[in-house]
Amino acid sequence: MIVERNAGALQLLRESVRPLLILFAWDLFVVGAFQLAHRSWMDQPALPVTLIGSALILFMSVRNNVAYARWWEARTLWGAIVNNTRSFARQAETLAEGRPDLTRAMIAYAKALRGALRGADASAEISPLLTPAMAELVLARNNKPNAILYEIGREISRSVRVQHLDGAVHAGIDRILSDLANAQGGLERIRNTPLAIQFSIFPGLIARVFCVLLPMSMVQELGWITPFGSTLAGFLYIALDKIGADLENPFQESVHAVPMAAISRTIEIDLLQSIGEPAPAPVVPEHGVLR
Amino acid sequence: MIVERNAGALQLLRESVRPLLILFAWDLFVVGAFQLAHRSWMDQPALPVTLIGSALILFMSVRNNVAYARWWEARTLWGAIVNNTRSFARQAETLAEGRPDLTRAMIAYAKALRGALRGADASAEISPLLTPAMAELVLARNNKPNAILYEIGREISRSVRVQHLDGAVHAGIDRILSDLANAQGGLERIRNTPLAIQFSIFPGLIARVFCVLLPMSMVQELGWITPFGSTLAGFLYIALDKIGADLENPFQESVHAVPMAAISRTIEIDLLQSIGEPAPAPVVPEHGVLR
Amino acid sequence: MIVERNAGALQLLRESVRPLLILFAWDLFVVGAFQLAHRSWMDQPALPVTLIGSALILFMSVRNNVAYARWWEARTLWGAIVNNTRSFARQAETLAEGRPDLTRAMIAYAKALRGALRGADASAEISPLLTPAMAELVLARNNKPNAILYEIGREISRSVRVQHLDGAVHAGIDRILSDLANAQGGLERIRNTPLAIQFSIFPGLIARVFCVLLPMSMVQELGWITPFGSTLAGFLYIALDKIGADLENPFQESVHAVPMAAISRTIEIDLLQSIGEPAPAPVVPEHGVLR
Amino acid sequence: MIVERNAGALQLLRESVRPLLILFAWDLFVVGAFQLAHRSWMDQPALPVTLIGSALILFMSVRNNVAYARWWEARTLWGAIVNNTRSFARQAETLAEGRPDLTRAMIAYAKALRGALRGADASAEISPLLTPAMAELVLARNNKPNAILYEIGREISRSVRVQHLDGAVHAGIDRILSDLANAQGGLERIRNTPLAIQFSIFPGLIARVFCVLLPMSMVQELGWITPFGSTLAGFLYIALDKIGADLENPFQESVHAVPMAAISRTIEIDLLQSIGEPAPAPVVPEHGVLR
Amino acid sequence: MIVERNAGALQLLRESVRPLLILFAWDLFVVGAFQLAHRSWMDQPALPVTLIGSALILFMSVRNNVAYARWWEARTLWGAIVNNTRSFARQAETLAEGRPDLTRAMIAYAKALRGALRGADASAEISPLLTPAMAELVLARNNKPNAILYEIGREISRSVRVQHLDGAVHAGIDRILSDLANAQGGLERIRNTPLAIQFSIFPGLIARVFCVLLPMSMVQELGWITPFGSTLAGFLYIALDKIGADLENPFQESVHAVPMAAISRTIEIDLLQSIGEPAPAPVVPEHGVLR
Repeated sequence: MIVERNAGALQLLRESVRPLLILFAWDLFVVGAFQLAHRSWMDQPALPVTLIGSALILFMSVRNNVAYARWWEARTLWGAIVNNTRSFARQAETLAEGRPDLTRAMIAYAKALRGALRGADASAEISPLLTPAMAELVLARNNKPNAILYEIGREISRSVRVQHLDGAVHAGIDRILSDLANAQGGLERIRNTPLAIQFSIFPGLIARVFCVLLPMSMVQELGWITPFGSTLAGFLYIALDKIGADLENPFQESVHAVPMAAISRTIEIDLLQSIGEPAPAPVVPEHGVLR
Repeated sequence: MIVERNAGALQLLRESVRPLLILFAWDLFVVGAFQLAHRSWMDQPALPVTLIGSALILFMSVRNNVAYARWWEARTLWGAIVNNTRSFARQAETLAEGRPDLTRAMIAYAKALRGALRGADASAEISPLLTPAMAELVLARNNKPNAILYEIGREISRSVRVQHLDGAVHAGIDRILSDLANAQGGLERIRNTPLAIQFSIFPGLIARVFCVLLPMSMVQELGWITPFGSTLAGFLYIALDKIGADLENPFQESVHAVPMAAISRTIEIDLLQSIGEPAPAPVVPEHGVLR
Repeated sequence: MIVERNAGALQLLRESVRPLLILFAWDLFVVGAFQLAHRSWMDQPALPVTLIGSALILFMSVRNNVAYARWWEARTLWGAIVNNTRSFARQAETLAEGRPDLTRAMIAYAKALRGALRGADASAEISPLLTPAMAELVLARNNKPNAILYEIGREISRSVRVQHLDGAVHAGIDRILSDLANAQGGLERIRNTPLAIQFSIFPGLIARVFCVLLPMSMVQELGWITPFGSTLAGFLYIALDKIGADLENPFQESVHAVPMAAISRTIEIDLLQSIGEPAPAPVVPEHGVLR
Repeated sequence: MIVERNAGALQLLRESVRPLLILFAWDLFVVGAFQLAHRSWMDQPALPVTLIGSALILFMSVRNNVAYARWWEARTLWGAIVNNTRSFARQAETLAEGRPDLTRAMIAYAKALRGALRGADASAEISPLLTPAMAELVLARNNKPNAILYEIGREISRSVRVQHLDGAVHAGIDRILSDLANAQGGLERIRNTPLAIQFSIFPGLIARVFCVLLPMSMVQELGWITPFGSTLAGFLYIALDKIGADLENPFQESVHAVPMAAISRTIEIDLLQSIGEPAPAPVVPEHGVLR
Repeated sequence: MIVERNAGALQLLRESVRPLLILFAWDLFVVGAFQLAHRSWMDQPALPVTLIGSALILFMSVRNNVAYARWWEARTLWGAIVNNTRSFARQAETLAEGRPDLTRAMIAYAKALRGALRGADASAEISPLLTPAMAELVLARNNKPNAILYEIGREISRSVRVQHLDGAVHAGIDRILSDLANAQGGLERIRNTPLAIQFSIFPGLIARVFCVLLPMSMVQELGWITPFGSTLAGFLYIALDKIGADLENPFQESVHAVPMAAISRTIEIDLLQSIGEPAPAPVVPEHGVLR
């Protein structure tokens, strides 16, 4: 995720150069063919660009709204992970009367979840945070974050029996585990369910066809100015498509992704400080990008 | 649900061939009748296509937003089923002190729910997962998933009495059953309540009328180029209608449906692994389609 | 609610005939007056129909989105009634250790709620489902569904005292009663709060004025074709208004209403089967309409 | 809130007369100056009214959606007050074993909340409903509804101690008090946070400038018909602004406000009947307006 | 946040002067160059301003909706902080039997949260409100509001053990702390996650390019009137961009920011009055601006 305005401007500039050049080359070719080579079939002022543009706007509008909603929902669900791990840490200390091992296991949970969403193996990272017994059970399971929640639940249950804790307190802690399961399930849902393929493929395709037709509809009137007008108008639609594509997969390897490394580090810091252990420094943006 | 971009592109191409050919044939006919047979009544440049197009855009906009929202709500509710069955498995083990039979019954629940939404009989699939006594009671009921939840609730209640579990713990487990009932009710609501018939029928109808008029309004100016401009513009509106129709019934037999088989398999794997039993492999996409 | 596509198409056709005929007649009159009687003041090509159309689209867009949202919220709240009565039946059996009379009272609740929303007296229907004592108390109250919930709460409370049930279990059942009170309150809110009168009246009025002006702005260019173009364009706006009007009052007596009879029958079946009593058949659509 | 269609139509008519007359006068002045006095600078057909109109539509669209959402959220939150006071009355009777004084205090709560939102002093109304001790404490506080909730909480707590009620039951009642606090906080948020000033001021201003320019852009083509076309088009934008202004402050003294008197009367009736006391009649609409 | 209409109008006027002057100067330059210096390349009536305008409208629409939603979510989450601190104060008094020190700590929590969101050090403000022991622990932590919640949770836990409070009551209070953690996490999410950089940078950039082109596309037809039409149309798009920029960061130092000082003062007053201590006066708007 880009967090600095200047870095963002630079990034957008960098991403824009290629489409702008291609558009400009094509527009130049059209105007050249028309003005110099007198290929009059290249001049089609009556092409229904407005009608096509209207439909394109609708495609873009639905798709970009949905893509943004996916991104923001992913971010919000990670926020719920942060909130609930904090609440769990408070409960582990105040309700279950001190279980720093479970607070550490919760840090492992955040790291395991990040690994699962990125499709990376987080075993090396999470093993040192778990007790050996727990680590063994967890690493044998497919869904590692889910397994950690399961084992934490089992440990809480053991604590309850040993310390004769009240059932309502037990149910209260279990509710936080269920809330974590809900947030995790939401993140897996976004990861495993790509944006409906029609909205993922059509807008970009139509925008490109539109950009091919655009100079043809203008060249007669605009002449040598065509590439400027046409490139600018076309670029806006290409940019809208690019934005949607950037946001629709919030966990992909990209500067626009949800900064899961920074968020899971935040969890690590908050939880380690809450059990009085030294915490690492927060993740800082590199070249304006927080990952 | 299509999960691979290339497969999706292929699928969209396949679905687009027929409407494109029909549109092209009609546009060709119009231009032919006008240019060759000089049927001048076919040339109606003043037809109010922009006004009709504006209303059509509004129809499409409301309908496609609603259709997408239905699809995504269905997917989200299935996500809630996944989350809550996981939480139940954790509770069955940690709160109710080990009831693998209920975890298995929960797998049956997911399968029964999928069957009910598809309108298929899932009795053969769910019977082996239930105890004989439970199976008999469940199969006699109309709403099988609801009956399974009911019987699980009864068993939990028995467990509570036998093991002298705390009431708050009991209420906590019951809350998960209520959350499952809520998600199931939401899925049944989407299945039993088709999209308002006006939004389901009008957009496609208007789009088709629009496509018939389109070449007539262009043929005078565009001449033999008409079919290209008109077919492209018309196709966009047909495509928008098709997308809405694909998404509005998320449980129909279609490559665009919510992948209920894959989701209920995920539940099966997570729950079987949590009680230490061997789990089947996940459902993999076939030709890029996850079902 | 129309649940069959063909029946829906027929219904829409039937509803469309009258506005189409009126529009066509007016358009024909305008073109006739202009072409035959040479009333040139009927020809106003410069009328700002695009500007009026844009504002009309915005009116329609806000209104139809809001009307649809009202309808869907009403349907969703009825869904919540279904879910929570089911959960209550499970709890009455498993937590409160068997109170079939309360499950029956819950069926009465659904029927009383439907009666209240339709503005009909449901006393005859609900009395047989209540114990005589409860019936007497309930029928004396204005808000009958609320009174039933109240009496069920009182009975649960008595059950708790007699059976020495755990407080948390009691609180869990009470939570379901509060959830029912919330869903009922939401339904009453939609019923008692009509759509803001501006959005209810203006769109239809403006659409009609628009349809009167439309042929005048076209007749010069379109000549005798005017009625076809103008009637089609005008009809779309009339149809949008009709859709909004159909959906904005989800409980009115109409084929487009939320099918409350079918939903309360579903509740009846589910609840009777859960206490082992014979259940009536589900409501089936008549001529494609579920009520 | 206007609840009768005819009264609404009349009200809209009444509100429309003034802007329509002003618009018509200006349009007439423009066309007169141009046609009679030949002030040709008044004729500006090339003015970018479409571009200005597009931006205006976007302003109106965001603002009216937001204004409606505020109104509906306010109504929904009042609905939550209704639901939760009902649930509280049920609990006061069934869980806390009969505390009619607290049910009466809850009626005072609704009245105090309405007073606070209207900026009116409701002391005289609420004092008779509270015990003298409670009244004294409440009237000394700034935020009276909050103080009543606080005192009710204290009384419940006393009841719990005296009657040896279960902690879970106590927590369940307290949850309802928290839900009331949440709804109240939401209402205060809407009251204290005006719609962003940009959306509150700009749309009306731009609409007015737009209406001044409109006849100038039409007079050349429309001639003496100008006032009809221009007034109609301009009025639509003025009406959109008026609707937004009416809805953005749901608690103001206006026929379009949320009917808080009627809602708090509903609460009064429901709660008095639940403790078996005579209830006043519901508030009825006067001239179609419910307040 | 601007709360007075007149002050708002003045503020908008003040903010509008500079862009209006710049736009007017440029428009004047274009028309001067064209009319006086006969730089005909400045006249480009065929520039695709409508197409560019359509894409710009879509950019603005998505962005301003999102920016407003961020602002309103921030305001709503602060509302949740208000509601939950009130509920906590009620519970501290009625459930935990009087802990004014914790109510004071909750005031410190609101101040610490405001400081954290503004990026300011609130240590001096919060220390006097905490017990010395708590202050020491809190000031050593990075995330001060989170640390205060943590310590409050620990104190509640101690109270429970000393007073032999019921577990369900304890769980109920803990739920409020979790709700506060959720609201706080939401506020941190909005603060730490800037609006997607594409929507933050592109709209303003495109609007400016658009304003540069606008007079060129009009000068031929409008002549010396150009600056009036072009400046007005251009200003609307600049204003839309400005509104989005004002709302997208709700915690920045600006007259449009969420009034966190006023809200945390409200919390202070409500909580101090609830424990019978003298409260400061509410924050009043200065020059119509509430901060």
